[in-house]
Amino acid sequence: MTAVNERPRDHRTPDTDLTDEEIFRAHEGGKLEVGATASLADPRALSIAYTPGVARVSRAIAEDAALAAKYTWAHRLVAVVSDGTAVLGLGDIGPRASLPVMEGKAALFKTFGGLDSIPLVLDTTDVDEIVETLVRLRPSFGAVNLEDVAAPRCFELERRLVEALDVPVMHDDQHGTAVVLLAALRGANTVLGKDIAHQRVVVSGAGAAGVACAKILVAAGVGEVTVVDSRGIVHAGRDGLNPVKVELAEVTNASGLRGGLAEALRGADVFVGVSSARVEEELIASMAADSVVFALSNPDPEVHPEVAGRHAAVVATGRSDFPNQINNVLAFPGIFRGALDAGARRITENMKLAASAAIAAVASEDLAADRIVPSALDPRVAPEVANAVALAARQDGVA
Amino acid sequence: MTAVNERPRDHRTPDTDLTDEEIFRAHEGGKLEVGATASLADPRALSIAYTPGVARVSRAIAEDAALAAKYTWAHRLVAVVSDGTAVLGLGDIGPRASLPVMEGKAALFKTFGGLDSIPLVLDTTDVDEIVETLVRLRPSFGAVNLEDVAAPRCFELERRLVEALDVPVMHDDQHGTAVVLLAALRGANTVLGKDIAHQRVVVSGAGAAGVACAKILVAAGVGEVTVVDSRGIVHAGRDGLNPVKVELAEVTNASGLRGGLAEALRGADVFVGVSSARVEEELIASMAADSVVFALSNPDPEVHPEVAGRHAAVVATGRSDFPNQINNVLAFPGIFRGALDAGARRITENMKLAASAAIAAVASEDLAADRIVPSALDPRVAPEVANAVALAARQDGVA
Repeated sequence: MTAVNERPRDHRTPDTDLTDEEIFRAHEGGKLEVGATASLADPRALSIAYTPGVARVSRAIAEDAALAAKYTWAHRLVAVVSDGTAVLGLGDIGPRASLPVMEGKAALFKTFGGLDSIPLVLDTTDVDEIVETLVRLRPSFGAVNLEDVAAPRCFELERRLVEALDVPVMHDDQHGTAVVLLAALRGANTVLGKDIAHQRVVVSGAGAAGVACAKILVAAGVGEVTVVDSRGIVHAGRDGLNPVKVELAEVTNASGLRGGLAEALRGADVFVGVSSARVEEELIASMAADSVVFALSNPDPEVHPEVAGRHAAVVATGRSDFPNQINNVLAFPGIFRGALDAGARRITENMKLAASAAIAAVASEDLAADRIVPSALDPRVAPEVANAVALAARQDGVA
Repeated sequence: MTAVNERPRDHRTPDTDLTDEEIFRAHEGGKLEVGATASLADPRALSIAYTPGVARVSRAIAEDAALAAKYTWAHRLVAVVSDGTAVLGLGDIGPRASLPVMEGKAALFKTFGGLDSIPLVLDTTDVDEIVETLVRLRPSFGAVNLEDVAAPRCFELERRLVEALDVPVMHDDQHGTAVVLLAALRGANTVLGKDIAHQRVVVSGAGAAGVACAKILVAAGVGEVTVVDSRGIVHAGRDGLNPVKVELAEVTNASGLRGGLAEALRGADVFVGVSSARVEEELIASMAADSVVFALSNPDPEVHPEVAGRHAAVVATGRSDFPNQINNVLAFPGIFRGALDAGARRITENMKLAASAAIAAVASEDLAADRIVPSALDPRVAPEVANAVALAARQDGVA
């Protein structure tokens, strides 16, 4: 990790010159491997790690199940679970095609969190069946990172898994994004001298990321949140809201705004785009002075950062080739590491808020309008997040 | 692996001086780790292995599912699956307590077969549920090694999985043992100048290993096989035979023997003990001249090898501290490696026979009454087995 200690000042990455040949070659045979922590190629090692030695360990766990946490890898193993229904910007491409993403995620867990993880991609999209499958496999892992499951099914699936399993479960597309977004907003506010309690934030998109961003902003004490989906502003009087949006309507839009994105953005302090819906320049221009724009869709931000920058004081995207990249990798390795370090049975709201604060604290050491979050590769982040999350878990009594 | 190229001439291993402290310390945190085949700690690597690069690979697999075999790890990944109902000699100790054994198995797959594998231990013993679970997880792995599942359920479970999955499935407690046993018998016969076609073999035990040993001996052309279980000789006229034993009765005991182990062993050429039932010295003494004794129960052989050696020309056990260890590790890494190298959809009888012949061929280079099989650590074995199994898979048209 030493090579990445120096955070890049030149924010452009060489993404754009990647060739298909180079990408496919790097994926040949997949990106993961399972190794033994000790070689078994001599008789003594074999006798310890396999028969007859292993029988003593198995017998001890049979007598005291709690010993499994100490003498197996399961309690520190993250299952990276997907049904392949909302993969990156590609949509429902199925479990097989999602696997390269899950392998990448597992590689990130190892590189940034020092955690072992295994991709489990499921050939079913039925919530009952996915829950049932993971309950049956429960002795095999210590945490579940849900990934790339389509909304609104992802909300029910996460809720059901949290109920059914006594381990940390988190849908990263929701909460990873939300945690980093909140950290970035704190960074921007420090640069601009603004107070979150007096801001109105517009979230464009009510999918996995949009719902979670709206919720964490409310939990963090943002003045007002307005959520806009493809049918306009989400409000309690609208017909046909699904249960998730009914819940959102209860905690957002206190001003009772009606209309679409134009009505929502007029005079707003912060824009959070997580829907890929294009936003015209004049809408950004209609926001309050010193506005903040998060145009997080990949690969095409809702508004080009140069265009947004003509009007907004701070602009962030999901891309690595512009300043202020909002990248989940700042959150999930440390969140799971902290939860597993603490032996947490679940991931609470306070643990997510603590993760967000820890990311913001690292950023605060070197803050500027184009450095509101740490680099995605900053090795200081995951350990700080893990410590903060573990502390919050103990404070919440879930560890 | 260089350290084990020299096969030990002193067959005693240091098993007996293992301390609990040493064993438990070696198991702390478990015995496996998942690594990334390339570091993701620089921006370019991240862009290739994760977003945005990975999207091109996912899209390609979505368009052509066959590409998953080339660009993910799943096609070379073995799921080591257990419900923990027949773990070593410990019995039904459950999935959590079985996990150290499955981790050891995965470590052996890596060390000897160069294969990645993940333990999946299941909190259900219902055959339907286990099959259903693995069918749902099908896109996640490339083969299934069933392990430590109790008989007779293991027979149905393996059969059902072979039907339901288009990948190699093998219950190692059955077939791994059988493959190595047959290789060892060939080695003994070469030393003794005997022909398998003229031998009568008594198999004591009709559990997972016993049934598979009996079947592979029949398939290999042994003159006659007599199976003895806790109720005596298995024959078609016996009441209450389960379906597996009905099938056994059809292909064994052509002489129509009745009675127990004493009646079966009188004049027999070969004894195969896989039941832990003790065998008295006088029974071994009643066998034919130049008899062969396989006392495979662990840790206590059915008859002590020194006692058996007073009467038998060749004696083998399952233990590493006596000569002629019958150890599954001679078989399963190469069998799965060969099946996966060939892209086999299942594991046929010919593939098992080919594995057995390959093990015997390695042993034949340095054969003696106390060296009828290669050392469990002989690095020549797995590649030879893999080549033979891959060839047989292609000959059988399953690859």
